[in-house]
Amino acid sequence: MSIKHYTREEILEMPKDFRRNFINCLSGYKPVCLCGTINLERQTNLAIISNVLHVGAHPPLIGILLRPHVVERHTVENIDQVGYFTLNNVSEDYYKAAHQTSARYPREESEFKATGLNEFFGERVPAPYVKEASLKMGFRIRERVKITTNATIFMVGQLEEVFLPEEAIGKDGFLFLEKMGSIVSSGLDRYHRADPIARLSYAKTDRPIKEIE
Amino acid sequence: MSIKHYTREEILEMPKDFRRNFINCLSGYKPVCLCGTINLERQTNLAIISNVLHVGAHPPLIGILLRPHVVERHTVENIDQVGYFTLNNVSEDYYKAAHQTSARYPREESEFKATGLNEFFGERVPAPYVKEASLKMGFRIRERVKITTNATIFMVGQLEEVFLPEEAIGKDGFLFLEKMGSIVSSGLDRYHRADPIARLSYAKTDRPIKEIE
Repeated sequence: MSIKHYTREEILEMPKDFRRNFINCLSGYKPVCLCGTINLERQTNLAIISNVLHVGAHPPLIGILLRPHVVERHTVENIDQVGYFTLNNVSEDYYKAAHQTSARYPREESEFKATGLNEFFGERVPAPYVKEASLKMGFRIRERVKITTNATIFMVGQLEEVFLPEEAIGKDGFLFLEKMGSIVSSGLDRYHRADPIARLSYAKTDRPIKEIE
Repeated sequence: MSIKHYTREEILEMPKDFRRNFINCLSGYKPVCLCGTINLERQTNLAIISNVLHVGAHPPLIGILLRPHVVERHTVENIDQVGYFTLNNVSEDYYKAAHQTSARYPREESEFKATGLNEFFGERVPAPYVKEASLKMGFRIRERVKITTNATIFMVGQLEEVFLPEEAIGKDGFLFLEKMGSIVSSGLDRYHRADPIARLSYAKTDRPIKEIE
């Protein structure tokens, strides 16, 4: 196996499209969600995102990193106007429709209509859920952090409600994502199923870890 | 399929361990990396992390979210002292050793020695790489952002160098993570292989997407 080494300077000299693929893959496998938002004129927006991060369990917080000057502009504007967003899991059944939401639709055209995915509204958040998604999470904005290095926005959402299939919930609260049909992404455009290897016990310094159910 | 609905209030009333599993799984599948650091006394540290986020391709930036008061305290202290960290992919060959790094080893005991993983030092960053990892990335701290809601730290690293197998690099810069043996995690303790579904073409509003190589 031949090992390649690239320095920062060599990476900066890569052709732009090559570098974009290369760097987008480096961070590894990613979750893939549909982010639903709405503006004050009640126009909805749906965007596929993979920059989703667990921030904390108490209080329950998830963060999403958005690029306000390009693809995710409408999402950022809607969240800034209304203060809420939803995250919906992507399954193999509609991953192509989910991917299609990344096309540059004009402001007045909802990605829901354009891709055939359906809106669902809950009672806790004004933003739309994706009806087809088995996992639906509604968030209120808790913190908006600007990453000054490249002018991206890290939106920290406080979980307001969640809908999910009961059969995916384990006895200890663990969620078996494959029972919800959730898939994985890599780079900007590749999708994968996840095939379980094992769950491992809590690591202690004085005993070996073992596989658990 | 029976759908469960939980409100924020119901989630806050879950038993603590149940809620921790539940919320840690909600954000979906995650990358899994080993983060290598060193302090000014040249004591090394190695921590398994899944809170890894692509921040930007130009300049190449990856962020990691760390909890300074608990498990990742040594990692945060070392990065604050020295200003560098490494990220190394985790493969099925050593994922148990990687998981074991999450045990609470004392300051003076390196997780490298404790788990049998080996240090490798490059020329660009002072922090140690994991010799066994096929993907090794070295970062200099570019920005340190505090998430005030729960006192976590989002460390944005600027990529200084990367080592990876040449065969994993596609013609357009896309990285085939399975050729590097990279795996996926969910929740706090479950690991998965990723099984490719497809790569999809760049989405346009006026034409259907198709599968690409």
